[in-house]
Amino acid sequence: MSDLSATSRTRHRRLREQGRTDREDLFAVLRAGFVCHLGVVADGDPMVVPTVYGFDSDHIYVHGSVASRSLAQGATVCVTITHIDGLVLARSVFEHGVNYRSAMIYGVPRALEDEEKLAALECLTEHVAPGQWDYARRPNRKELAATTILAISLEEASVKVRQGPPEDADDPHDVWAGVLPLATSWRRPVTDPLATRPIPDHVMRRAETPL
Amino acid sequence: MSDLSATSRTRHRRLREQGRTDREDLFAVLRAGFVCHLGVVADGDPMVVPTVYGFDSDHIYVHGSVASRSLAQGATVCVTITHIDGLVLARSVFEHGVNYRSAMIYGVPRALEDEEKLAALECLTEHVAPGQWDYARRPNRKELAATTILAISLEEASVKVRQGPPEDADDPHDVWAGVLPLATSWRRPVTDPLATRPIPDHVMRRAETPL
Repeated sequence: MSDLSATSRTRHRRLREQGRTDREDLFAVLRAGFVCHLGVVADGDPMVVPTVYGFDSDHIYVHGSVASRSLAQGATVCVTITHIDGLVLARSVFEHGVNYRSAMIYGVPRALEDEEKLAALECLTEHVAPGQWDYARRPNRKELAATTILAISLEEASVKVRQGPPEDADDPHDVWAGVLPLATSWRRPVTDPLATRPIPDHVMRRAETPL
Repeated sequence: MSDLSATSRTRHRRLREQGRTDREDLFAVLRAGFVCHLGVVADGDPMVVPTVYGFDSDHIYVHGSVASRSLAQGATVCVTITHIDGLVLARSVFEHGVNYRSAMIYGVPRALEDEEKLAALECLTEHVAPGQWDYARRPNRKELAATTILAISLEEASVKVRQGPPEDADDPHDVWAGVLPLATSWRRPVTDPLATRPIPDHVMRRAETPL
Protein backbone atom coordinates (compact mmCIF):
# COMPACT_ATOMS: atom_id res chain seq x y z
CA MET A 1 0.00 0.00 0.00
CA SER A 2 1.28 3.44 -0.77
CA ASP A 3 -0.69 6.58 -0.10
CA LEU A 4 -3.87 6.69 1.91
CA SER A 5 -6.94 6.17 -0.19
CA ALA A 6 -9.45 8.92 -0.86
CA THR A 7 -12.84 7.29 -1.09
CA SER A 8 -16.04 9.28 -0.64
CA ARG A 9 -15.86 8.39 3.04
CA THR A 10 -12.24 9.23 3.69
CA ARG A 11 -11.77 12.26 1.48
CA HIS A 12 -11.03 15.25 3.66
CA ARG A 13 -14.01 17.51 3.13
CA ARG A 14 -13.75 19.69 6.18
CA LEU A 15 -10.61 21.32 7.62
CA ARG A 16 -8.79 19.97 4.60
CA GLU A 17 -5.47 21.43 5.71
CA GLN A 18 -5.50 19.00 8.64
CA GLY A 19 -5.65 15.93 6.39
CA ARG A 20 -2.62 13.74 5.90
CA THR A 21 -2.08 11.45 2.97
CA ASP A 22 1.06 9.56 3.89
CA ARG A 23 0.53 5.99 5.05
CA GLU A 24 3.29 6.47 7.63
CA ASP A 25 1.07 9.05 9.33
CA LEU A 26 -1.51 6.31 9.83
CA PHE A 27 1.03 4.01 11.45
CA ALA A 28 2.26 6.82 13.68
CA VAL A 29 -1.29 7.28 15.02
CA LEU A 30 -1.74 3.52 15.41
CA ARG A 31 1.54 3.15 17.30
CA ALA A 32 0.73 5.95 19.75
CA GLY A 33 -2.22 4.24 21.44
CA PHE A 34 -3.89 0.93 22.12
CA VAL A 35 -7.60 1.77 22.52
CA CYS A 36 -9.83 2.60 19.55
CA HIS A 37 -13.50 3.45 19.24
CA LEU A 38 -15.24 0.86 17.11
CA GLY A 39 -18.44 2.01 15.43
CA VAL A 40 -20.99 -0.44 14.11
CA VAL A 41 -24.60 -0.18 12.98
CA ALA A 42 -26.80 -2.25 15.29
CA ASP A 43 -30.51 -2.49 14.50
CA GLY A 44 -30.15 0.59 12.31
CA ASP A 45 -28.54 2.75 14.98
CA PRO A 46 -24.88 3.54 15.55
CA MET A 47 -23.06 1.93 18.47
CA VAL A 48 -19.58 3.12 19.49
CA VAL A 49 -17.56 0.84 21.73
CA PRO A 50 -14.04 1.39 23.09
CA THR A 51 -11.81 -1.61 22.61
CA VAL A 52 -8.14 -2.56 22.40
CA TYR A 53 -6.37 -3.06 19.11
CA GLY A 54 -3.17 -4.23 17.48
CA PHE A 55 -2.08 -3.91 13.87
CA ASP A 56 0.34 -5.05 11.20
CA SER A 57 1.17 -3.55 7.81
CA ASP A 58 -2.21 -4.48 6.31
CA HIS A 59 -4.78 -4.86 9.09
CA ILE A 60 -5.97 -3.55 12.40
CA TYR A 61 -7.09 -6.26 14.83
CA VAL A 62 -9.72 -5.39 17.39
CA HIS A 63 -11.12 -7.21 20.36
CA GLY A 64 -14.68 -7.32 19.11
CA SER A 65 -16.97 -9.22 21.44
CA VAL A 66 -19.58 -6.53 22.05
CA ALA A 67 -19.49 -5.21 18.51
CA SER A 68 -19.48 -8.52 16.70
CA ARG A 69 -22.62 -9.63 18.54
CA SER A 70 -24.47 -6.69 17.00
CA LEU A 71 -22.76 -6.81 13.64
CA ALA A 72 -24.53 -8.03 10.53
CA GLN A 73 -22.54 -10.26 8.18
CA GLY A 74 -20.67 -8.16 5.63
CA ALA A 75 -21.46 -4.86 7.35
CA THR A 76 -18.92 -2.05 7.37
CA VAL A 77 -17.42 -0.77 10.61
CA CYS A 78 -15.56 2.43 11.39
CA VAL A 79 -12.55 2.34 13.70
CA THR A 80 -11.42 5.69 15.07
CA ILE A 81 -8.24 6.27 17.06
CA THR A 82 -7.75 9.67 18.65
CA HIS A 83 -4.89 11.19 20.63
CA ILE A 84 -5.57 14.52 22.31
CA ASP A 85 -2.47 16.68 22.60
CA GLY A 86 -3.86 19.91 23.99
CA LEU A 87 -6.39 22.69 24.03
CA VAL A 88 -6.01 25.49 21.52
CA LEU A 89 -7.00 28.64 23.39
CA ALA A 90 -7.50 31.31 20.77
CA ARG A 91 -8.41 34.98 20.97
CA SER A 92 -11.92 34.19 19.74
CA VAL A 93 -14.15 31.40 21.02
CA PHE A 94 -14.79 30.49 17.39
CA GLU A 95 -11.13 29.60 16.80
CA HIS A 96 -10.83 27.46 19.93
CA GLY A 97 -9.98 23.89 19.21
CA VAL A 98 -7.99 20.83 20.05
CA ASN A 99 -4.55 19.69 19.04
CA TYR A 100 -4.95 16.06 18.11
CA ARG A 101 -3.90 13.15 15.94
CA SER A 102 -6.70 10.97 14.66
CA ALA A 103 -7.23 8.09 12.26
CA MET A 104 -10.43 6.65 10.83
CA ILE A 105 -10.47 3.23 9.21
CA TYR A 106 -13.45 1.85 7.29
CA GLY A 107 -13.76 -1.80 6.43
CA VAL A 108 -15.76 -4.98 6.54
CA PRO A 109 -14.35 -6.95 9.45
CA ARG A 110 -13.53 -10.61 9.27
CA ALA A 111 -13.82 -12.67 12.46
CA LEU A 112 -10.65 -14.70 12.69
CA GLU A 113 -10.44 -18.39 13.60
CA ASP A 114 -7.82 -20.89 14.73
CA GLU A 115 -4.23 -20.05 13.80
CA GLU A 116 -5.13 -16.65 12.36
CA LYS A 117 -6.95 -15.74 15.54
CA LEU A 118 -4.03 -16.83 17.70
CA ALA A 119 -1.55 -14.84 15.56
CA ALA A 120 -3.75 -11.73 15.70
CA LEU A 121 -4.17 -12.08 19.46
CA GLU A 122 -0.38 -12.26 19.79
CA CYS A 123 -0.07 -9.13 17.61
CA LEU A 124 -2.67 -7.33 19.72
CA THR A 125 -1.19 -8.44 23.05
CA GLU A 126 2.32 -7.46 22.00
CA HIS A 127 1.11 -4.06 20.83
CA VAL A 128 -0.71 -3.36 24.09
CA ALA A 129 1.86 -4.89 26.42
CA PRO A 130 5.12 -5.84 24.71
CA GLY A 131 6.62 -8.97 26.23
CA GLN A 132 3.43 -10.32 27.76
CA TRP A 133 2.80 -12.94 25.07
CA ASP A 134 5.88 -14.86 26.14
CA TYR A 135 5.45 -14.08 29.84
CA ALA A 136 1.77 -14.66 30.61
CA ARG A 137 -0.11 -17.91 30.07
CA ARG A 138 -1.34 -18.14 26.49
CA PRO A 139 -5.00 -18.86 25.85
CA ASN A 140 -6.15 -22.46 25.92
CA ARG A 141 -8.66 -23.81 23.43
CA LYS A 142 -11.68 -22.80 25.52
CA GLU A 143 -10.39 -19.27 26.14
CA LEU A 144 -9.55 -18.80 22.49
CA ALA A 145 -13.05 -19.89 21.52
CA ALA A 146 -14.48 -17.29 23.92
CA THR A 147 -12.40 -14.50 22.34
CA THR A 148 -13.52 -12.58 19.26
CA ILE A 149 -10.84 -10.96 17.14
CA LEU A 150 -11.85 -8.96 14.09
CA ALA A 151 -9.44 -8.12 11.27
CA ILE A 152 -10.11 -4.92 9.32
CA SER A 153 -8.08 -3.89 6.29
CA LEU A 154 -6.11 -0.65 6.53
CA GLU A 155 -6.86 0.02 2.86
CA GLU A 156 -9.54 2.67 3.41
CA ALA A 157 -8.25 5.07 6.03
CA SER A 158 -7.83 8.75 6.70
CA VAL A 159 -5.63 10.66 9.12
CA LYS A 160 -6.07 14.13 10.52
CA VAL A 161 -3.55 16.01 12.60
CA ARG A 162 -3.79 19.47 14.14
CA GLN A 163 -0.84 20.86 16.07
CA GLY A 164 0.51 24.28 16.92
CA PRO A 165 -0.76 27.62 18.19
CA PRO A 166 -4.16 29.21 17.48
CA GLU A 167 -4.60 30.83 14.09
CA ASP A 168 -6.39 34.04 14.90
CA ALA A 169 -3.40 36.31 15.62
CA ASP A 170 -5.11 38.92 13.46
CA ASP A 171 -8.09 39.08 15.79
CA PRO A 172 -8.45 42.56 17.32
CA HIS A 173 -9.41 41.06 20.70
CA ASP A 174 -6.07 41.49 22.48
CA VAL A 175 -5.77 38.67 25.03
CA TRP A 176 -3.38 35.87 25.84
CA ALA A 177 -3.56 32.97 23.41
CA GLY A 178 -1.76 29.66 23.29
CA VAL A 179 -1.97 25.97 23.86
CA LEU A 180 -2.62 24.05 27.05
CA PRO A 181 -0.83 20.76 26.36
CA LEU A 182 -2.24 17.47 27.54
CA ALA A 183 0.00 14.45 27.98
CA THR A 184 -0.73 10.82 28.65
CA SER A 185 1.95 8.88 30.48
CA TRP A 186 2.53 5.61 32.28
CA ARG A 187 2.91 5.52 36.03
CA ARG A 188 4.84 3.03 38.16
CA PRO A 189 3.38 -0.49 37.92
CA VAL A 190 1.08 -1.48 40.79
CA THR A 191 1.62 -5.07 41.83
CA ASP A 192 -1.43 -7.25 42.45
CA PRO A 193 -1.51 -7.80 46.27
CA LEU A 194 -1.86 -11.50 45.51
CA ALA A 195 1.22 -11.67 43.26
CA THR A 196 4.49 -12.94 44.68
CA ARG A 197 6.93 -12.32 41.81
CA PRO A 198 8.88 -9.09 41.20
CA ILE A 199 7.95 -6.70 38.39
CA PRO A 200 9.52 -8.13 35.21
CA ASP A 201 11.87 -6.06 33.06
CA HIS A 202 9.51 -5.84 30.08
CA VAL A 203 6.81 -4.24 32.24
CA MET A 204 9.29 -1.75 33.69
CA ARG A 205 10.40 -0.90 30.15
CA ARG A 206 6.80 -0.31 29.07
CA ALA A 207 6.31 1.95 32.11
CA GLU A 208 9.41 3.95 31.20
CA THR A 209 8.63 4.29 27.47
CA PRO A 210 6.52 7.28 26.49
CA LEU A 211 3.30 6.40 24.72
CA MET B 1 -33.77 11.93 36.35
CA SER B 2 -32.88 9.28 38.85
CA ASP B 3 -31.22 6.02 37.90
CA LEU B 4 -29.75 5.33 34.52
CA SER B 5 -32.20 3.79 32.13
CA ALA B 6 -31.94 0.20 30.97
CA THR B 7 -33.24 0.09 27.43
CA SER B 8 -32.37 -2.74 25.07
CA ARG B 9 -29.39 -0.66 23.95
CA THR B 10 -28.03 0.31 27.34
CA ARG B 11 -28.73 -2.82 29.35
CA HIS B 12 -25.42 -4.31 30.44
CA ARG B 13 -25.33 -7.63 28.66
CA ARG B 14 -21.65 -8.35 28.80
CA LEU B 15 -19.31 -7.95 31.77
CA ARG B 16 -22.37 -7.04 33.76
CA GLU B 17 -20.40 -6.54 36.98
CA GLN B 18 -18.75 -3.50 35.35
CA GLY B 19 -22.06 -1.75 34.79
CA ARG B 20 -23.06 1.22 36.93
CA THR B 21 -26.59 2.38 37.44
CA ASP B 22 -26.20 5.60 39.40
CA ARG B 23 -26.69 8.78 37.42
CA GLU B 24 -23.85 10.39 39.38
CA ASP B 25 -21.48 7.86 37.77
CA LEU B 26 -22.47 9.28 34.39
CA PHE B 27 -21.66 12.83 35.48
CA ALA B 28 -18.33 11.69 36.93
CA VAL B 29 -17.35 10.28 33.51
CA LEU B 30 -18.60 13.42 31.73
CA ARG B 31 -16.67 15.71 34.09
CA ALA B 32 -13.40 13.83 33.61
CA GLY B 33 -12.94 14.63 29.92
CA PHE B 34 -13.88 16.95 27.11
CA VAL B 35 -13.59 14.86 23.94
CA CYS B 36 -16.18 12.24 23.01
CA HIS B 37 -16.54 9.90 20.06
CA LEU B 38 -19.74 10.65 18.19
CA GLY B 39 -21.16 7.79 16.15
CA VAL B 40 -23.66 8.37 13.37
CA VAL B 41 -24.99 6.29 10.49
CA ALA B 42 -24.03 7.90 7.19
CA ASP B 43 -25.28 6.28 3.98
CA GLY B 44 -25.93 3.11 5.94
CA ASP B 45 -22.44 2.84 7.37
CA PRO B 46 -21.16 3.88 10.79
CA MET B 47 -18.99 6.97 11.12
CA VAL B 48 -17.17 7.74 14.37
CA VAL B 49 -15.85 11.26 14.85
CA PRO B 50 -13.98 12.70 17.83
CA THR B 51 -15.40 16.02 18.99
CA VAL B 52 -15.55 18.25 22.05
CA TYR B 53 -18.53 18.31 24.37
CA GLY B 54 -20.10 20.08 27.30
CA PHE B 55 -23.09 19.05 29.39
CA ASP B 56 -25.70 20.12 31.90
CA SER B 57 -28.04 18.06 34.05
CA ASP B 58 -30.18 16.95 31.11
CA HIS B 59 -28.12 17.14 27.91
CA ILE B 60 -24.74 16.65 26.38
CA TYR B 61 -23.80 19.29 23.81
CA VAL B 62 -21.43 18.33 21.03
CA HIS B 63 -19.67 20.26 18.34
CA GLY B 64 -21.26 18.49 15.44
CA SER B 65 -20.21 19.92 12.08
CA VAL B 66 -18.84 16.75 10.49
CA ALA B 67 -21.47 14.49 11.99
CA SER B 68 -24.49 16.68 11.34
CA ARG B 69 -23.65 16.94 7.65
CA SER B 70 -24.04 13.18 7.39
CA LEU B 71 -26.94 12.86 9.79
CA ALA B 72 -30.46 12.13 8.62
CA GLN B 73 -33.27 14.06 10.30
CA GLY B 74 -34.48 12.20 13.38
CA ALA B 75 -31.66 9.67 13.30
CA THR B 76 -30.17 8.34 16.53
CA VAL B 77 -26.55 8.97 17.43
CA CYS B 78 -24.30 7.29 19.98
CA VAL B 79 -21.90 9.38 22.04
CA THR B 80 -19.14 7.47 23.81
CA ILE B 81 -16.73 8.95 26.35
CA THR B 82 -13.83 6.81 27.50
CA HIS B 83 -11.09 7.36 30.06
CA ILE B 84 -8.28 4.83 30.09
CA ASP B 85 -6.76 4.37 33.55
CA GLY B 86 -4.33 1.53 32.99
CA LEU B 87 -3.44 -1.86 31.62
CA VAL B 88 -4.50 -4.92 33.59
CA LEU B 89 -1.64 -7.37 33.24
CA ALA B 90 -2.97 -10.72 34.38
CA ARG B 91 -1.36 -14.13 34.75
CA SER B 92 -3.21 -15.33 31.64
CA VAL B 93 -3.47 -13.45 28.35
CA PHE B 94 -7.21 -14.15 28.45
CA GLU B 95 -7.67 -12.09 31.62
CA HIS B 96 -5.70 -9.12 30.33
CA GLY B 97 -7.72 -5.98 30.08
CA VAL B 98 -7.98 -2.27 30.63
CA ASN B 99 -8.96 -0.21 33.65
CA TYR B 100 -11.37 2.37 32.30
CA ARG B 101 -14.41 4.54 32.85
CA SER B 102 -16.77 4.80 29.94
CA ALA B 103 -20.20 6.23 29.16
CA MET B 104 -22.46 5.65 26.16
CA ILE B 105 -25.33 7.98 25.42
CA TYR B 106 -27.99 7.28 22.80
CA GLY B 107 -30.32 9.94 21.53
CA VAL B 108 -31.77 11.85 18.63
CA PRO B 109 -29.78 15.08 18.46
CA ARG B 110 -31.37 18.46 18.04
CA ALA B 111 -29.37 21.14 16.21
CA LEU B 112 -29.63 24.25 18.36
CA GLU B 113 -30.31 27.76 17.07
CA ASP B 114 -30.02 31.33 18.28
CA GLU B 115 -30.10 31.80 22.07
CA GLU B 116 -30.10 28.09 22.77
CA LYS B 117 -27.05 27.62 20.56
CA LEU B 118 -25.22 30.45 22.27
CA ALA B 119 -26.04 29.08 25.74
CA ALA B 120 -24.89 25.59 24.75
CA LEU B 121 -21.69 26.97 23.25
CA GLU B 122 -21.01 28.79 26.51
CA CYS B 123 -21.65 25.55 28.44
CA LEU B 124 -19.32 23.65 26.11
CA THR B 125 -16.59 26.32 26.18
CA GLU B 126 -16.71 26.58 29.96
CA HIS B 127 -16.51 22.81 30.33
CA VAL B 128 -13.50 22.55 28.04
CA ALA B 129 -11.72 25.71 29.21
CA PRO B 130 -13.28 27.28 32.30
CA GLY B 131 -13.03 31.07 32.22
CA GLN B 132 -12.56 31.40 28.47
CA TRP B 133 -16.16 32.45 27.75
CA ASP B 134 -15.63 35.71 29.62
CA TYR B 135 -12.02 36.10 28.48
CA ALA B 136 -12.00 35.33 24.76
CA ARG B 137 -14.03 37.13 22.12
CA ARG B 138 -17.50 35.63 21.89
CA PRO B 139 -18.81 34.50 18.51
CA ASN B 140 -20.36 37.10 16.27
CA ARG B 141 -23.46 36.37 14.22
CA LYS B 142 -21.53 34.98 11.27
CA GLU B 143 -19.34 32.72 13.43
CA LEU B 144 -22.36 31.44 15.34
CA ALA B 145 -24.08 30.61 12.06
CA ALA B 146 -21.01 28.63 11.00
CA THR B 147 -21.05 26.59 14.23
CA THR B 148 -23.18 23.47 14.67
CA ILE B 149 -24.09 22.50 18.21
CA LEU B 150 -26.15 19.37 18.79
CA ALA B 151 -28.05 18.70 22.02
CA ILE B 152 -28.57 15.07 22.99
CA SER B 153 -30.64 14.02 25.99
CA LEU B 154 -28.84 12.18 28.79
CA GLU B 155 -31.96 10.07 29.34
CA GLU B 156 -30.69 6.91 27.65
CA ALA B 157 -27.19 6.28 28.91
CA SER B 158 -25.02 3.56 30.34
CA VAL B 159 -21.80 3.66 32.30
CA LYS B 160 -19.15 1.01 32.70
CA VAL B 161 -16.19 1.15 35.03
CA ARG B 162 -13.40 -1.38 35.55
CA GLN B 163 -10.73 -0.69 38.17
CA GLY B 164 -8.40 -2.74 40.31
CA PRO B 165 -6.02 -5.67 39.93
CA PRO B 166 -6.41 -8.64 37.59
CA GLU B 167 -8.83 -11.33 38.65
CA ASP B 168 -6.99 -14.53 37.91
CA ALA B 169 -5.06 -14.98 41.17
CA ASP B 170 -6.13 -18.63 41.08
CA ASP B 171 -4.32 -19.22 37.80
CA PRO B 172 -1.54 -21.80 38.23
CA HIS B 173 0.80 -19.79 35.95
CA ASP B 174 2.96 -18.19 38.64
CA VAL B 175 4.13 -14.82 37.27
CA TRP B 176 3.99 -11.18 38.27
CA ALA B 177 0.58 -9.61 37.79
CA GLY B 178 -0.69 -6.11 38.35
CA VAL B 179 -1.72 -2.88 36.77
CA LEU B 180 0.29 -0.45 34.67
CA PRO B 181 -1.47 2.84 35.38
CA LEU B 182 -1.95 5.44 32.68
CA ALA B 183 -2.54 9.06 33.58
CA THR B 184 -3.52 12.07 31.52
CA SER B 185 -2.35 15.43 32.80
CA TRP B 186 -2.02 19.04 31.75
CA ARG B 187 1.38 20.52 31.07
CA ARG B 188 2.48 24.14 31.39
CA PRO B 189 0.65 26.45 28.96
CA VAL B 190 2.57 27.30 25.77
CA THR B 191 2.09 30.92 24.78
CA ASP B 192 1.41 31.70 21.12
CA PRO B 193 4.60 33.40 19.84
CA LEU B 194 2.34 36.15 18.49
CA ALA B 195 0.61 36.80 21.82
CA THR B 196 1.75 39.68 24.00
CA ARG B 197 -0.29 39.22 27.17
CA PRO B 198 0.71 37.09 30.17
CA ILE B 199 -0.95 33.74 30.89
CA PRO B 200 -4.22 34.54 32.69
CA ASP B 201 -5.03 33.04 36.07
CA HIS B 202 -7.91 30.90 34.82
CA VAL B 203 -5.62 29.14 32.33
CA MET B 204 -2.98 28.53 35.02
CA ARG B 205 -5.70 27.10 37.25
CA ARG B 206 -6.85 24.74 34.49
CA ALA B 207 -3.24 23.64 33.98
CA GLU B 208 -2.87 22.91 37.69
CA THR B 209 -6.18 21.08 38.10
CA PRO B 210 -6.09 17.33 37.45
CA LEU B 211 -8.44 16.17 34.73
